[in-house]
Amino acid sequence: MEMKLPGQEGFEASSAPRNIPSGELDSNPDPGTGPSPDGPSDTESKELGVPKDPLLFIQLNELLGWPQALEWRETGSSSASLLLDMGEMPSITLSTHLHHRWVLFEEKLEVAAGRWSAPHVPTLALPSLQKLRSLLAEGLVLLDCPAQSLLELVEQVTRVESLSPELRGQLQALLLQRPQHYNQTTGTRPCWGSTHPRKASDNEEAPLREQCQNPLRQKLPPGAEAGTVLAGELGFLAQPLGAFVRLRNPVVLGSLTEVSLPSRFFCLLLGPCMLGKGYHEMGRAAAVLLSDPQFQWSVRRASNLHDLLAALDAFLEEVTVLPPGRWDPTARIPPPKCLPSQHKRLPSQQREIRGPAVPRLTSAEDRHRHGPHAHSPELQRTGRKVPWYPSDFLDALHLQCFSAVLYIYLATVTNAITFGGLLGDATDGAQGVLESFLGTAVAGAAFCLMAGQPLTILSSTGPVLVFERLLFSFSRDYSLDYLPFRLWVGIWVATFCLVLVATEASVLVRYFTRFTEEGFCALISLIFIYDAVGKMLNLTHTYPIQKPGSSAYGCLCQYPGPGGNESQWIRTRPKDRDDIVSMDLGLINASLLPPPECTRQGGHPRGPGCHTVPDIAFFSLLLFLTSFFFAMALKCVKTSRFFPSVVRKGLSDFSSVLAILLGCGLDAFLGLATPKLMVPREFKPTLPGRGWLVSPFGANPWWWSVAAALPALLLSILIFMDQQITAVILNRMEYRLQKGAGFHLDLFCVAVLMLLTSALGLPWYVSATVISLAHMDSLRRESRACAPGERPNFLGIREQRLTGLVVFILTGASIFLAPVLKFIPMPVLYGIFLYMGVAALSSIQFTNRVKLLLMPAKHQPDLLLLRHVPLTRVHLFTAIQLACLGLLWIIKSTPAAIIFPLMLLGLVGVRKALERVFSPQELLWLDELMPEEERSIPEKGLEPEHSFSGSDSEDSELMYQPKAPEINISVN
Amino acid sequence: MEMKLPGQEGFEASSAPRNIPSGELDSNPDPGTGPSPDGPSDTESKELGVPKDPLLFIQLNELLGWPQALEWRETGSSSASLLLDMGEMPSITLSTHLHHRWVLFEEKLEVAAGRWSAPHVPTLALPSLQKLRSLLAEGLVLLDCPAQSLLELVEQVTRVESLSPELRGQLQALLLQRPQHYNQTTGTRPCWGSTHPRKASDNEEAPLREQCQNPLRQKLPPGAEAGTVLAGELGFLAQPLGAFVRLRNPVVLGSLTEVSLPSRFFCLLLGPCMLGKGYHEMGRAAAVLLSDPQFQWSVRRASNLHDLLAALDAFLEEVTVLPPGRWDPTARIPPPKCLPSQHKRLPSQQREIRGPAVPRLTSAEDRHRHGPHAHSPELQRTGRKVPWYPSDFLDALHLQCFSAVLYIYLATVTNAITFGGLLGDATDGAQGVLESFLGTAVAGAAFCLMAGQPLTILSSTGPVLVFERLLFSFSRDYSLDYLPFRLWVGIWVATFCLVLVATEASVLVRYFTRFTEEGFCALISLIFIYDAVGKMLNLTHTYPIQKPGSSAYGCLCQYPGPGGNESQWIRTRPKDRDDIVSMDLGLINASLLPPPECTRQGGHPRGPGCHTVPDIAFFSLLLFLTSFFFAMALKCVKTSRFFPSVVRKGLSDFSSVLAILLGCGLDAFLGLATPKLMVPREFKPTLPGRGWLVSPFGANPWWWSVAAALPALLLSILIFMDQQITAVILNRMEYRLQKGAGFHLDLFCVAVLMLLTSALGLPWYVSATVISLAHMDSLRRESRACAPGERPNFLGIREQRLTGLVVFILTGASIFLAPVLKFIPMPVLYGIFLYMGVAALSSIQFTNRVKLLLMPAKHQPDLLLLRHVPLTRVHLFTAIQLACLGLLWIIKSTPAAIIFPLMLLGLVGVRKALERVFSPQELLWLDELMPEEERSIPEKGLEPEHSFSGSDSEDSELMYQPKAPEINISVN
Repeated sequence: MEMKLPGQEGFEASSAPRNIPSGELDSNPDPGTGPSPDGPSDTESKELGVPKDPLLFIQLNELLGWPQALEWRETGSSSASLLLDMGEMPSITLSTHLHHRWVLFEEKLEVAAGRWSAPHVPTLALPSLQKLRSLLAEGLVLLDCPAQSLLELVEQVTRVESLSPELRGQLQALLLQRPQHYNQTTGTRPCWGSTHPRKASDNEEAPLREQCQNPLRQKLPPGAEAGTVLAGELGFLAQPLGAFVRLRNPVVLGSLTEVSLPSRFFCLLLGPCMLGKGYHEMGRAAAVLLSDPQFQWSVRRASNLHDLLAALDAFLEEVTVLPPGRWDPTARIPPPKCLPSQHKRLPSQQREIRGPAVPRLTSAEDRHRHGPHAHSPELQRTGRKVPWYPSDFLDALHLQCFSAVLYIYLATVTNAITFGGLLGDATDGAQGVLESFLGTAVAGAAFCLMAGQPLTILSSTGPVLVFERLLFSFSRDYSLDYLPFRLWVGIWVATFCLVLVATEASVLVRYFTRFTEEGFCALISLIFIYDAVGKMLNLTHTYPIQKPGSSAYGCLCQYPGPGGNESQWIRTRPKDRDDIVSMDLGLINASLLPPPECTRQGGHPRGPGCHTVPDIAFFSLLLFLTSFFFAMALKCVKTSRFFPSVVRKGLSDFSSVLAILLGCGLDAFLGLATPKLMVPREFKPTLPGRGWLVSPFGANPWWWSVAAALPALLLSILIFMDQQITAVILNRMEYRLQKGAGFHLDLFCVAVLMLLTSALGLPWYVSATVISLAHMDSLRRESRACAPGERPNFLGIREQRLTGLVVFILTGASIFLAPVLKFIPMPVLYGIFLYMGVAALSSIQFTNRVKLLLMPAKHQPDLLLLRHVPLTRVHLFTAIQLACLGLLWIIKSTPAAIIFPLMLLGLVGVRKALERVFSPQELLWLDELMPEEERSIPEKGLEPEHSFSGSDSEDSELMYQPKAPEINISVN
Repeated sequence: MEMKLPGQEGFEASSAPRNIPSGELDSNPDPGTGPSPDGPSDTESKELGVPKDPLLFIQLNELLGWPQALEWRETGSSSASLLLDMGEMPSITLSTHLHHRWVLFEEKLEVAAGRWSAPHVPTLALPSLQKLRSLLAEGLVLLDCPAQSLLELVEQVTRVESLSPELRGQLQALLLQRPQHYNQTTGTRPCWGSTHPRKASDNEEAPLREQCQNPLRQKLPPGAEAGTVLAGELGFLAQPLGAFVRLRNPVVLGSLTEVSLPSRFFCLLLGPCMLGKGYHEMGRAAAVLLSDPQFQWSVRRASNLHDLLAALDAFLEEVTVLPPGRWDPTARIPPPKCLPSQHKRLPSQQREIRGPAVPRLTSAEDRHRHGPHAHSPELQRTGRKVPWYPSDFLDALHLQCFSAVLYIYLATVTNAITFGGLLGDATDGAQGVLESFLGTAVAGAAFCLMAGQPLTILSSTGPVLVFERLLFSFSRDYSLDYLPFRLWVGIWVATFCLVLVATEASVLVRYFTRFTEEGFCALISLIFIYDAVGKMLNLTHTYPIQKPGSSAYGCLCQYPGPGGNESQWIRTRPKDRDDIVSMDLGLINASLLPPPECTRQGGHPRGPGCHTVPDIAFFSLLLFLTSFFFAMALKCVKTSRFFPSVVRKGLSDFSSVLAILLGCGLDAFLGLATPKLMVPREFKPTLPGRGWLVSPFGANPWWWSVAAALPALLLSILIFMDQQITAVILNRMEYRLQKGAGFHLDLFCVAVLMLLTSALGLPWYVSATVISLAHMDSLRRESRACAPGERPNFLGIREQRLTGLVVFILTGASIFLAPVLKFIPMPVLYGIFLYMGVAALSSIQFTNRVKLLLMPAKHQPDLLLLRHVPLTRVHLFTAIQLACLGLLWIIKSTPAAIIFPLMLLGLVGVRKALERVFSPQELLWLDELMPEEERSIPEKGLEPEHSFSGSDSEDSELMYQPKAPEINISVN
């Protein structure tokens, strides 16, 4: 039975049994050509791929009996009619409770536990949907109902033929009862017994305090509307009563909803008792329907019952069905990582409404469809950055930038300390911590002011460090004066880079596919790991372990005095003892003082054991392992369940800082003489006896300034690869940068800074991937209001120059931290270094493929890659990468090590040759395509199995995300 | 259109358009009262809760076009009729491919990757099910078709009115084509191009080699049948063709199925081209239907089309529906941990068939419903074990028992070494490793021969070790002769235990709820952890770390000789130096030899530094941490994805053995003088100068033998708790033990052995939970044949006495391992000890609740507990447990420590008092109920919110598993 009410305000009772379409009631006579639902302001509704409609909060209130009522509830309608005959109001024995709520996902009130369940994907039983459909088809449907209050609404929905006036009164009284909401703020269970029947005349429709204080309120965006479903069994009803109301103007219906929101939809599902939880399940079905974006869109524009049922049928067409024997219907499914795109579900006219705009692609689709093209537009255009310049400072006026500055400052300082310590080691003090701080500050600040992409953070990076170490050993082998030679290398590199800028060679970066990136990253990471472990083990040579049979035992303190001179030591050694170490003593003035004390008292420590410091080797190893594992563990805290997310994020973001602090604390606690970081006490170069400006020639013959062009060529390749690969990653489409990139400008800046730092004898700097990504990540703008179970929407990055600038000014000021830095033990830094190498290595897809080699096929994760490429081919690709890596490692270990940048470039050639071994489809999944291949695919056409299998269409678009390349070239 | 064929054999062609019910075709005229489907032999089908029907393997073959055919496929039926007019056989351009298969879950062939996907829960679109229903309703339904071969079958299904003879011939040729199966054994992609049309007369219906070699074949149980669904678009068909066939006798249909199995069902879904993948999805729907146990049951007994459609509708009634906007329909859902019980889905008549037997409960239900009752029957009956005695040896004749012996032997030996080392430490050598081996062997073997539950493994356990340590320090405080005093304690304990046996006091064990068990376990685990760390730190006192300012520096080797005597050392010390340590030397005959070497050469090491051994402290710490973390990591290997499951299980099962080996290897590699395990070289008691038999009085006054009754009372409580809690756990219903338990007999055995070991001065033994559980686990009987995605079914335990006996005989023989054992460093054993404590602590629910304290409510796991008890109440309960634990710890640290068993018993009282704080419902979820409470619940009635919320019925029964108590009293 369909019911329709005339549209005039203050209308009289009408029980017309037919649903007569009425233009007055329906403000959108044609749902197809109605007002464009596009609104440019709200990014969130755009995200869903449906036109901008207000977010809907839906709740299900259920009518439940009280113990007294339980009897007649169980004995069915006969007793109910008895109650009715007695003229008792059933309101005392019934109460409405909110049991379920929806925004995107379902939440259920765990009554006994007194809390809302975790949001989960709602599951329905098919019969409840079908019963709902028939109830609505026969029930009352009011579209654009003009009711202004709960009272009016209740009067309208109860005005049906089948109800006697007496029953109607009882029903109205019932519906006007104040429902019990669980009060989340106080955390107490509501007192279920305190329900008082509210009279129909009671005008307390003002929202209650707990409604306004509800924490969900803050999460919902402004303009959100509510939908209420009221379901339950009423014994006194003779036949089911279904009503669906769309209010013309959303009205706050008193305390009907948990959150004080204007209600748009109202659905009433009542009826006589039936077996099972029929009305409860029907109510859930109605709520799930309303929470479906597509159904919501349709029903907001529905003009009659037919439209409503058509929307329900369209919903049914698209549901996913799980078979009963293979799935437990009571299991709660957690919300998926990201929701399926709603775009393809839109009816055609709805899509047209959205106008001729380019259909929005999800970022996953972007990446998959565009692949290596993603950066093409940036590479072709020379960014005009001037118009953005003022906003680059104004945009930084946000609280978030303060925390970003703190975070990136600490990361930069840690980096400067670590790389400074290691550079000092690598170059015998030609550079050191002071140079590292100074260089980072100068180069970083200059870059932030000038560069095309000021979100980039310059830093010493692994590849450059490795090259510097090789360059230093090269110049030592040829007895060169290092810093002048290095200056010439810098001059040449700057020249080459400027040539690359002038020829717009950055476009070549397209040939660096993931194969090359991964080879690059894996080699550098392995060198990091190898060096960290090697340096640690070297400490055991400096501080040997004393084994029981060790010969390095014993030390005496000898005082110069009468009768004691050094020659006596040897003279008195008897020859009949085969112990070559022990010495007989013929001395009077000697003591067993420890060597430092001995020296202090004017003596000379003598003996084979004087230079051994016990316990240092193992304690260093402990420090090394502690800082490594502690940093690794802190990194994992981010994904643990413990602590609020702010704490977790803090712990994992500052993992290396905290690990260094722990190491220093342990070291200070035990007070052993571990090797410490060498920090100059004054503001002067670490290398004694040099000024700040490096002389161009020094002790080297003049022709070395020309010969320096050769290593400079290699370094240029390295710097180009390191800088541009990082730039490509930072300017990926998924970060939605608005102000454009500046590939050429950035390389120009790097070249100029190269010249400056070489002249001053400071380290060389290029863009550091990880720290720059961390910088961008700390400046993410996200939608704040989000529904339970929904992940916040990414809106973009605060693109500005100020945070970077402040970070580097602070870094410069930290030069005066020397009195603190000298307490940092070197083993701790080696541990952090190991951590960096391991973290970088584990972030690349290559590592995951190596892991696949160890996994039985049965236990392999369901990677998209494995769905499309045979396992043997995947293993072959991995094996080739491993072989390349092995070859690079061998070259690195020979005297020809300095040419390794050239070999890295050789990876591009290997990748090109792989086109003969693998099909383009396989390479598309295993790697990316090179420019030529991209063109070649349409010519060749798709391979038969690819077009025939139809399997691609069965893959979820959401699964394309794992293919997003993740690389960590510069290891932070 | 329903179709029916007459039932006579060798029938002629019949195209009767009506489905006339025929008694001859239908062997089960009444599906409700048909032959009882119960079969007692197969436990697996019982597991599913449905009557025993053969397992069904279902596959979907799809008809796919080839490139030539692609054109007309895309241009629709008009071109197809063109092809038809030309008289071309479409067989060249079409081929059948197997794309999906089902046993329990769906597997999809990843064509490009050439492998089967992981099994997943099948998801369907609702329209495809509805389309299938209408196609079957109008199609051909043959129930009990007598076809004997594929040829006959094809002839029958194509005999429909709508097909012209010419079309029929083409169709038959198509259907008789040999399909392409993916060959899993060779791992190669099938050569899709090599399909040859098979003539209808081709009699090659013998199974192909790859069909028989298919690895799936071995997994399917004997008697499995196949069902085949053939779906596809055929352009030359004018109207859809649907056929459903149930063969009277299952027949191997040539190479139609991937695995060579007799086919029972055959479903054909063909039709003209339509949009989308209509027939493919319909085919999947048909296959999913067939894989549903309930549908299968119905359709095996269906007598006509009406029954078939009714079964389909019943399926639709029970499907779970996921809304389209909130769930990505292409996501693959992994198989659930266990399948929902099918029992409640059985129609009533089917349930009646199953007879009046007690409805089978899942073990989860058992535990939930019975809770602490589960062990009641065992506790009331005195197990009569004699009838089982011969089978206790014969049942051991299985290969599995060999690996069980190896595994348990290694675990027992590790335990004996660890506890032996620690007992030696705790009792100053009154007991040691030798006693530990001997006692374990004697007591264990005797128990295995006599006990009621011979699967129990006796071992030194944590509680007894803790008590022994307290007893030793008590007897030292009172200057007692330890072993005689201990003998009297043992005599008294045995007496008390025998009294407990005689009074059948084991029934009291019901009062030990989880609260008590967890308090017990947590305290013991904490003591383990505290002791392990404490003993490790004690080593740094024995082997001090030399700090830079350390005074313990320097050591000289002094030779007795002319002019050198010891008094001179002091005499020549000058008084003007404030350094009290250093000594001026006036000696000639001295050297810097290391102390051991010095002693060997006849000298005397003199000086403050002679007793310090450098590097030992830190190296010990490294060994300690290494063995702890290595054992922890190996334990986690079990759940990793790497390596085949046999390797993973081996690594995690032998984690402590491997960790000990690693520690010994490291120690041997560096060759430092770490403290080693003390093992006697001969077969005599560790304590020098005592015989094997302990004298009853020794040096103690006589009245101590009476006073020993007091500590004995405490120890009796401890032994009773430890022994009986373990026994309850081992005899839980979920292990499905057939031969019954023997609570009283086991306690009797323990008492007798107590007497024996006390008299011989050997350690005391009770049942060890973890090692006994490991023993049972290694003797699990599981169903071997299992479908992809299904977990093996647990059938029971090989209950016998032989494995335990052999283990203890081997342990006894290991006494002669002393030359090997002396290489084990003590820090490694401390590390393993720490690992045991941490592992035991992390296995109890209490720990999980403590973790909840640190988790924000949002991130808490969806525990059933949290659904039913308010978080504040959960935290209150945890806090009370923590307070009890703190109190126990304080008592343990005071001189009154020895009374801690009494305090453990006090936990029962605290638990009783908690009844005033928590409601029985809350205690039911947080703990278990005590006997009185169980009775009280029906009296009080359920709480209102419990009966009203209806939330319980929404909880999955599968979720009740987390409530299964897991405790590790005796820590292995």
